[in-house]
Amino acid sequence: MTLSKGFQYGVAGLAAATLLIAGPAMAQEAEAAPAVSADVQYIFNTLLFLIGGFLVMWMAAGFAMLEAGLVRSKNVSMQSLKNIALYSIAGIMYWVVGYNLMYTGVDGGYIGSFGTYAFDPVGGDALDTGYSTASDWFFQMVFVATAASIVSGTIAERTKLWPFLIFVVVLTGFIYPIAGSWQWGGGWLSEMGFSDFAGSTLVHSVGGWAALAGAILVGARAGKYEGGKINPMPGSSIPLATLGTFILWLGWFGFNGASQLAMGTISDVTDVSRIFANTNIAAASGVVVTIILLQVLYRKVDVTMVLNGALAGLVSITAEPLAPAVWQAILIGGVGGAIVVFTVPLLDRFKVDDVVGAIPVHLFAGIWGTLIVPFSNADTSYGVQLVGIIAYGVFTLVAAFIVWGILRAVMGIRATPEEEMMGLDKAEVGVDAYPEFQGGS
Amino acid sequence: MTLSKGFQYGVAGLAAATLLIAGPAMAQEAEAAPAVSADVQYIFNTLLFLIGGFLVMWMAAGFAMLEAGLVRSKNVSMQSLKNIALYSIAGIMYWVVGYNLMYTGVDGGYIGSFGTYAFDPVGGDALDTGYSTASDWFFQMVFVATAASIVSGTIAERTKLWPFLIFVVVLTGFIYPIAGSWQWGGGWLSEMGFSDFAGSTLVHSVGGWAALAGAILVGARAGKYEGGKINPMPGSSIPLATLGTFILWLGWFGFNGASQLAMGTISDVTDVSRIFANTNIAAASGVVVTIILLQVLYRKVDVTMVLNGALAGLVSITAEPLAPAVWQAILIGGVGGAIVVFTVPLLDRFKVDDVVGAIPVHLFAGIWGTLIVPFSNADTSYGVQLVGIIAYGVFTLVAAFIVWGILRAVMGIRATPEEEMMGLDKAEVGVDAYPEFQGGS
Amino acid sequence: MTLSKGFQYGVAGLAAATLLIAGPAMAQEAEAAPAVSADVQYIFNTLLFLIGGFLVMWMAAGFAMLEAGLVRSKNVSMQSLKNIALYSIAGIMYWVVGYNLMYTGVDGGYIGSFGTYAFDPVGGDALDTGYSTASDWFFQMVFVATAASIVSGTIAERTKLWPFLIFVVVLTGFIYPIAGSWQWGGGWLSEMGFSDFAGSTLVHSVGGWAALAGAILVGARAGKYEGGKINPMPGSSIPLATLGTFILWLGWFGFNGASQLAMGTISDVTDVSRIFANTNIAAASGVVVTIILLQVLYRKVDVTMVLNGALAGLVSITAEPLAPAVWQAILIGGVGGAIVVFTVPLLDRFKVDDVVGAIPVHLFAGIWGTLIVPFSNADTSYGVQLVGIIAYGVFTLVAAFIVWGILRAVMGIRATPEEEMMGLDKAEVGVDAYPEFQGGS
Repeated sequence: MTLSKGFQYGVAGLAAATLLIAGPAMAQEAEAAPAVSADVQYIFNTLLFLIGGFLVMWMAAGFAMLEAGLVRSKNVSMQSLKNIALYSIAGIMYWVVGYNLMYTGVDGGYIGSFGTYAFDPVGGDALDTGYSTASDWFFQMVFVATAASIVSGTIAERTKLWPFLIFVVVLTGFIYPIAGSWQWGGGWLSEMGFSDFAGSTLVHSVGGWAALAGAILVGARAGKYEGGKINPMPGSSIPLATLGTFILWLGWFGFNGASQLAMGTISDVTDVSRIFANTNIAAASGVVVTIILLQVLYRKVDVTMVLNGALAGLVSITAEPLAPAVWQAILIGGVGGAIVVFTVPLLDRFKVDDVVGAIPVHLFAGIWGTLIVPFSNADTSYGVQLVGIIAYGVFTLVAAFIVWGILRAVMGIRATPEEEMMGLDKAEVGVDAYPEFQGGS
Repeated sequence: MTLSKGFQYGVAGLAAATLLIAGPAMAQEAEAAPAVSADVQYIFNTLLFLIGGFLVMWMAAGFAMLEAGLVRSKNVSMQSLKNIALYSIAGIMYWVVGYNLMYTGVDGGYIGSFGTYAFDPVGGDALDTGYSTASDWFFQMVFVATAASIVSGTIAERTKLWPFLIFVVVLTGFIYPIAGSWQWGGGWLSEMGFSDFAGSTLVHSVGGWAALAGAILVGARAGKYEGGKINPMPGSSIPLATLGTFILWLGWFGFNGASQLAMGTISDVTDVSRIFANTNIAAASGVVVTIILLQVLYRKVDVTMVLNGALAGLVSITAEPLAPAVWQAILIGGVGGAIVVFTVPLLDRFKVDDVVGAIPVHLFAGIWGTLIVPFSNADTSYGVQLVGIIAYGVFTLVAAFIVWGILRAVMGIRATPEEEMMGLDKAEVGVDAYPEFQGGS
Repeated sequence: MTLSKGFQYGVAGLAAATLLIAGPAMAQEAEAAPAVSADVQYIFNTLLFLIGGFLVMWMAAGFAMLEAGLVRSKNVSMQSLKNIALYSIAGIMYWVVGYNLMYTGVDGGYIGSFGTYAFDPVGGDALDTGYSTASDWFFQMVFVATAASIVSGTIAERTKLWPFLIFVVVLTGFIYPIAGSWQWGGGWLSEMGFSDFAGSTLVHSVGGWAALAGAILVGARAGKYEGGKINPMPGSSIPLATLGTFILWLGWFGFNGASQLAMGTISDVTDVSRIFANTNIAAASGVVVTIILLQVLYRKVDVTMVLNGALAGLVSITAEPLAPAVWQAILIGGVGGAIVVFTVPLLDRFKVDDVVGAIPVHLFAGIWGTLIVPFSNADTSYGVQLVGIIAYGVFTLVAAFIVWGILRAVMGIRATPEEEMMGLDKAEVGVDAYPEFQGGS
């Protein structure tokens, strides 16, 4: 952290004057003084968490709209319900146990401590942390909700409500926080030098792995791979999916930008600005690359692929949105877009039925983004990045398989064929999404 | 209030140098220096109003989407029109007369003064208020729009455009501001010790009472209670209603958070953070409680109830979002959710036709939230809270009955049976909401 | 540019200490020291760009929803695609060449310099600009995207994808930046005294002229003016159009508010507040005037006209959102609304087929807003405003005609009659927007 120019001037003036009288010892002390007072820094840092937090909270709406648009109309009410429910569960579980599991007493280890989280009291004025504890909690809480949102899209249209909700309880209260503790909580991966600025791996791949486990255990939708073919099941509303993507894009400025965790110095706020610009341009690049590839390969520009291209660009830059030069951000995001174009068909070949394309976007692009960090950030190594990616993959996949497996054994996770045929809206929600419009199947 | 580190250092240096010459009196004066200068506080406070203001402005879109999703397709254009119109009318009336009626010269009384509102001049630099007057006006203006939005949902699908718009003129220019003056304007209830931090009563219940009066006078929709049964009239778009709820949830961070009215000290910004966290967790609790109750009672989780559960959680915490411990916020919001589940059917039993469920959400949960303030805030009393609730109820209900009554007598407030049957979109707007899709009735 | 506040402080400090030796006059001078340090100003200014930037970025979603709602269902996927594509292209082109063309080395001339844009390095701490360069780039970038969005709506439903995308490349990389350099880049119009605070002309009229050129060259939609009549082709979703309008309204607080370019002094943040209030009330006035005129003229209140009335109010106030008194803002925005009501039919009479009404809203109201600046801002003159309006009109119209003309000659800009009949979604996107719902034509 360098000394601010403005203060340097001030200090220089003061020191000069002082030295005329008091001698050299004082100049030393005055030079240590910050250009922005600790109180003002505290306010700026807290404000960054609050703004970043409400932007990421807004991503919950983005996932809801994206998924509501990409499922068939008979499952839209269910998808709406699952999304507001998972955000709510995440908000409670991350207070009940998640935050402390992730951030308290990890000390280079594998897990934090159990217990609910305590905010600063009303009128709190403890300067030492540099920000309000509740603002930090709020910002971290909306991240765990994002991880849960990823799962709901992949396994849509055939997964029952309650096993999904219970999975979300475990994911947001335990799996995500424990995994997160390894890196952001100061655990073993952090000590090893792993780097994941805003969560390409910690949030997006963790969500993606959990989704993958669910998709494998719950199986494909009825008819999806019938007759040895891949039968398209187009989403019910492209504009809602588009809206969801724009919401996510907007929220990502909070996701990546506020992950700088401070804006109380000109250096920090300058970094936040770089992050905004890089995040935007990586997403833009994901869009452009996707459009060009689709035109060349298919002669039609499938807009749902383009939306996922934007998201893949965003996920790709998330592991390191600060260090890249602009051209690097363009390259990183563009490869993310290409990953979507090439891996969406791949999943279908393995009969993994990912309704909204969340696995390519969040898992594959998340791996890519994490792996490529050393390309722009010289303090990291490809080897350690790989260790982190594998560690998160193994842990989350195993944990998710166990939880989904138990749920399948105990209560079943899949709707009956009749329920699936009539749609989960009728079966479990009791409310049609578009009761006046003619729905197909 | 602690002395700012930066300023301490600077002052220490200066003071030390000075003291060598001038003596001890000066150190005394230096200690009085604030940790955050008055100018910086002013900027932070104003910024809080601006951010809070645009978030609450966004709630106008939330109400529009919620209502567009919960009415039948033949009334969706009308509902869109009413919502953008009411926000606009509120914005003008609150300048023409509302703000000063509410905030100027109330002095412990029942009403402020008449007259338009004046902003600081261009380049204004009057520090004494602690914030820019236009930012305060903007923030308060979006609140009155919220109150008006509540009315439009309840009486949807059968109320004519123009009487509604005229009612909004009176509500936003006079009823809301006069009622508001009693508390936020420093009127008699404020002097009595009534407490309503962000408006469970002043905004939500006032809107709810006005909606109730309208619903009674305009009557139920044709067919709603025909044949002694309660005939469901499902909304046209669940994803739009879900979107509306998420928008409202997001906006509520501004609604409650910026009602702290200041963030120029670490104490204030810490409080804003607590409010964000409590607001979120109360809404989350409203969702979870609603889901559990619906599953237990009905075996289906009606998503429209869950959306209203979120909103009821938000309304419930609005009277006191700062003081509660997290577990208290969970309890307060959860009861809000339960209120929705139990009182929506109740209203139907009394044949009060509330199209979107706004009365349970805004009026009943608003009463609950206001009543429970002393549970977490020791400076308040249940008795005074009750006085306030009753005062607002009586005043708003009487005023709204008079205005709706006059409108009914003079111009009629209800569409003809033919217009209602064909839908208000065709009758008064001339534009179908979904002209290419088959609409039902 | 005034002396850096930090430096003033430093000087004051030096002077103070010195004067303790030299004499008493200095206390006087120390009082002139600024209350906000240069570092804190830098953070506030940068934060304004970031908040303003994400709000204007959100406008891209607003245009997407507005246009998705106002085209017929068979072209909704295409419109979604075009909007996310144009935002992405703008984001890349404005880095590749646009920013420097607009802002670097214009020096009273007609164009800046060629070359990619460079951000402050990681951890940048150069105070002299007063804000982070990346934040400024981000804020300016989202503006150029707005200009491109305007074009896409006007020429919807019959323009092919690729020529549109190529036009956007030229518009966002060259036409808009060169035109912008004349005023905001410190070019010849700026030296002449032209005034356009936030871009009624530079953004909205430029977009509008480009749209007009496109509409003329691509021609009207098949059947629009068949049989000597104006055949209405109603949009597919009024609630999405309403949502889009609310999004744009929200984004406009960033558009106009952050165009103050600074909030590091109480004077600046007070001005930002005035801008918020004036912007809101001008839009509100546009709505109210439109509603009244529609009622009087047509006896039906066409909600799409009202939405455009809100937008016209916003465009009208954009050239000067700071100086007007509230009543002036009401008048300026109200006339904007009236312009929509009277000029939408006018365009049809000239057989200019503007699908969403963007030319009345952005071009005509933009001209009005720019022309009326001297009404509230005494530093400007009607004559110079007219020169600016004409200069932008001639340049943009000629440039757009040339580019559209070349595209038409080289690759064709219009879909075939068969493609237009089946809809661009099937023809070029390969994805129906609402596959389960019955679409009309």
